[in-house]
Amino acid sequence: MKLEAQWITGFVDGEGCFHVGISRHPEMNLGFQVLPEFTVVQHQRDVQLLHALKAHFQCGVVRVNHGDRMAFRVRGLKNLQERIVPFFVKHPLKSKKRVDFERFRRVLLMMERGDHLTENGLEKIRSIAGEMNRGQPR
Amino acid sequence: MKLEAQWITGFVDGEGCFHVGISRHPEMNLGFQVLPEFTVVQHQRDVQLLHALKAHFQCGVVRVNHGDRMAFRVRGLKNLQERIVPFFVKHPLKSKKRVDFERFRRVLLMMERGDHLTENGLEKIRSIAGEMNRGQPR
Repeated sequence: MKLEAQWITGFVDGEGCFHVGISRHPEMNLGFQVLPEFTVVQHQRDVQLLHALKAHFQCGVVRVNHGDRMAFRVRGLKNLQERIVPFFVKHPLKSKKRVDFERFRRVLLMMERGDHLTENGLEKIRSIAGEMNRGQPR
Repeated sequence: MKLEAQWITGFVDGEGCFHVGISRHPEMNLGFQVLPEFTVVQHQRDVQLLHALKAHFQCGVVRVNHGDRMAFRVRGLKNLQERIVPFFVKHPLKSKKRVDFERFRRVLLMMERGDHLTENGLEKIRSIAGEMNRGQPR
């Protein structure tokens, strides 16, 4: 299945999520790991759409999310910076999710500079992450 | 805000709903009213998208759905047949929602012929409606 760029933007405006997780990770210097991820979740009946997204972006995985729901998930700074971000810069989201996307982008830029490895940078990222995904009804 | 056709299809693949309600209505001959409707529900923060859909389709209303959620809703055989159906025939949905759309279309055609005013027709519509929106996770 071939996906048009505007279809992808519309679908992600509805179903996509830009998220920055911060979790304890004893092996990291500061004891925390910053994990940005882009996900689209669908009922398993529409898993072919998730595979089409994966084929389009040429990265990420399609896995069980929970129960009968599947997720297309992209992690990793390189994939996110080189494949996900440029797409949504070129084809901007129309919903308020765009604001989360801009925060997500800021966090990725900070991580590229290694800010997440300093206490100040980590605090800043934590504050940006805290502003994201607040209004998500799901 | 101007919406591209493919964006609309992608967004409706995620957020749209084709529904046929059948409710008791003592003033109708058979005692039941058939109410087909197309809806898109969003958190109120993105109500501007619902207004943009309304402007695009040149029909329907934007109203409170429940709580902080708003709905763009199109009812009425004429609006549905002349404005909604042709759009999704020209720009087909990519998700399994397409199957519901095809059932929805069948019901509209039956209603045009007045089938919903006969007992047999109403039973048939009830059976098609029963097959729709089963898998909706929400």
